[in-house]
Amino acid sequence: MSDVELSQTPPLSIRARHAERSIIRELLKLAGQADVISFAGGLPSPKSFPVKAIEKATDWVLETHGARALQYSSTEGEAALRKAIAEHDAELGVPTDPDCIQIVSGSQQALDLAALAYVDEDSLIAVEDPTYLGALSAFRLQRPKFITLPTDDYGLNPDKIGPEFRGIRFAYVIPNFQNPTGITLSEERRIKLAEKAREYDFWILEDNPYGELWYDKQPPKPVRFYAPERTLSLGTFSKVLSPGFRLGYIVGPKAALEPMTTIKQAIDLHTSTFTQLISARCLDKGLMKKHMPEVRELYKTQCQCMLDAMDKYFPEGTTWTKPDGGMFIWATLPDYIDTDEMMHEALKRKVAYVPGSAFYANTPKKNTMRLSFVTVPPEKIKEGIKVLGTLIKERIDAHK
Amino acid sequence: MSDVELSQTPPLSIRARHAERSIIRELLKLAGQADVISFAGGLPSPKSFPVKAIEKATDWVLETHGARALQYSSTEGEAALRKAIAEHDAELGVPTDPDCIQIVSGSQQALDLAALAYVDEDSLIAVEDPTYLGALSAFRLQRPKFITLPTDDYGLNPDKIGPEFRGIRFAYVIPNFQNPTGITLSEERRIKLAEKAREYDFWILEDNPYGELWYDKQPPKPVRFYAPERTLSLGTFSKVLSPGFRLGYIVGPKAALEPMTTIKQAIDLHTSTFTQLISARCLDKGLMKKHMPEVRELYKTQCQCMLDAMDKYFPEGTTWTKPDGGMFIWATLPDYIDTDEMMHEALKRKVAYVPGSAFYANTPKKNTMRLSFVTVPPEKIKEGIKVLGTLIKERIDAHK
Repeated sequence: MSDVELSQTPPLSIRARHAERSIIRELLKLAGQADVISFAGGLPSPKSFPVKAIEKATDWVLETHGARALQYSSTEGEAALRKAIAEHDAELGVPTDPDCIQIVSGSQQALDLAALAYVDEDSLIAVEDPTYLGALSAFRLQRPKFITLPTDDYGLNPDKIGPEFRGIRFAYVIPNFQNPTGITLSEERRIKLAEKAREYDFWILEDNPYGELWYDKQPPKPVRFYAPERTLSLGTFSKVLSPGFRLGYIVGPKAALEPMTTIKQAIDLHTSTFTQLISARCLDKGLMKKHMPEVRELYKTQCQCMLDAMDKYFPEGTTWTKPDGGMFIWATLPDYIDTDEMMHEALKRKVAYVPGSAFYANTPKKNTMRLSFVTVPPEKIKEGIKVLGTLIKERIDAHK
Repeated sequence: MSDVELSQTPPLSIRARHAERSIIRELLKLAGQADVISFAGGLPSPKSFPVKAIEKATDWVLETHGARALQYSSTEGEAALRKAIAEHDAELGVPTDPDCIQIVSGSQQALDLAALAYVDEDSLIAVEDPTYLGALSAFRLQRPKFITLPTDDYGLNPDKIGPEFRGIRFAYVIPNFQNPTGITLSEERRIKLAEKAREYDFWILEDNPYGELWYDKQPPKPVRFYAPERTLSLGTFSKVLSPGFRLGYIVGPKAALEPMTTIKQAIDLHTSTFTQLISARCLDKGLMKKHMPEVRELYKTQCQCMLDAMDKYFPEGTTWTKPDGGMFIWATLPDYIDTDEMMHEALKRKVAYVPGSAFYANTPKKNTMRLSFVTVPPEKIKEGIKVLGTLIKERIDAHK
């Protein structure tokens, strides 16, 4: 940063000097251009928003609890919402006490809070390789070191977790329809991960933004079920109700929530009372049960459409995951193709994806890409995948 | 913290070991008990919430911009809201570009972001003495050192600012109806503060949660007007529309906002699209102009009621401020009375206040208290002040 820029701000903190704007957020700006077919988004389909039901719930909240909905609230969150979440968890087979739930301003804030409460400079955090880049951004503000969890074609492989994981602050994992790979961790591996956490005495930070977005069958029980005494699970309403509400939650042992509650008090007092009460009403009225089958069907169809197009247009030498839910397909190209560099040409041809390099904590694999199928209409999915297939084939041919 | 507790959490960060729950938030729990007359709150009166107008604005937003209101948004904030804020600022005589506004999740988050972007461990922050304790909590997460701004009966006294303020990260000030004192900084002192900031090359972080809550006349122009190149001004909708929305903003030079925007992206992506669009609609419909005279009248009456009761019931040897706006009166008792200790007896007699010690960055004055008059009905104000007056008189008599 030059001197000229420095004089235009107060003295920058070390943290601010290191912080970088996320590639995804910058790409969202391009994705916003009407003529670009964007597979780069992590946005849910606006078709999935239950606008009418939310309007009804909002009117009810303002008419029956107006003064409360507009007032300050407790840092822990509104009792009505915590109760509704606990009931929802119980239905998934994971009994939960409302007192063991902390409401947050989107599950992104949960990542920040976990790092604030449990990470110092140079602390070790274990992450999947690749993993959600927004988690890396949140964690990096505390300037930790990352150790990567061993993985194979079925996701993280707990068999290979050894004593080098003793002493980490926590292991951050996304067991359901992982971001970016779309892979789901098997029940067997969840059980094994819980055992290894106990053996090497580490905590698990389990992120589950996509669990409700299964296509044919529900994913296995959360890791928290197998290691409740050392797991903090993150949930969100962003993919099932509305990301515009900025509403998420953390479930875990009360003693482990408390340091995060104390810090949350200092950083934003509490999460919006208004959106909490609206969401609680939506849950109470069974909105998710009525609403989710439609969303699942939509995403399943879109996913299949992209997989079919990839079968047709992606050249030999490329491979990709076949997700059972969620929003993403992860493609691996021949190792001499650099998807960072290829992105410029893709954008010229009006197609966007997220280069895979952004999702690695340490050493990136440059020949990977994340493709989201949820916001693009089927015809455009085919068109965009065809463009990408052609582009990849050109690189392969040029390499021969 | 004992070993038993430690084993119930992941390894705590240094920050978490130092974070303390705010006394105010703990007191709010007591304030919630129906039989306590609480002057401890910082809550606006629920009578001031325009519930019907918000319901109308919400319906309009969902019916005309439903998909957008429920979707992810940009980290900077919704254009419609930034434009409405810029127009409101212009009407106050401070021309503002919407690009120089960052939307945040309540102005508490602005305090956190300012510290994240501009404060390292052991950095110097200048604060008023006393000052808003929530700001101290937010800043303390970065473990800075505090230098106190010289003050007298008229608030901070810029004449006494000397070269020891060179090199601070910023000076945090609340010029209008200060929290906790209720004092308003004169125009002359604002101009002088701007000059001193230029002379000693420091930035000003100007917090203005109460500016709209004037009783008889508008306060002077913000400090930013006199030093726009080195001031970041914080605003909020919590005291004029709804704290339950968790909506605030930062206005300042774009280059100085950018590091905060980058960090905000990592900590919560963005602020609720939904509450942003509802608030923009409320501003566009002129709601604040229609609504604020009523709120001002309510607060003025409540304030006068408390001042009258203090005149009648507070014993000789106590003094207090006479605010021209805002939510707080600050009382100073004989210096041998410790209001921390007296609080236990006050609670036994079912009256609550905030002990003044919480508002000091370094050395507390233990003989002070903050009294809020906004949420207590007039009859209860008289009753509560009488109880406190009696309690203080007992201490004075015992000391004789």
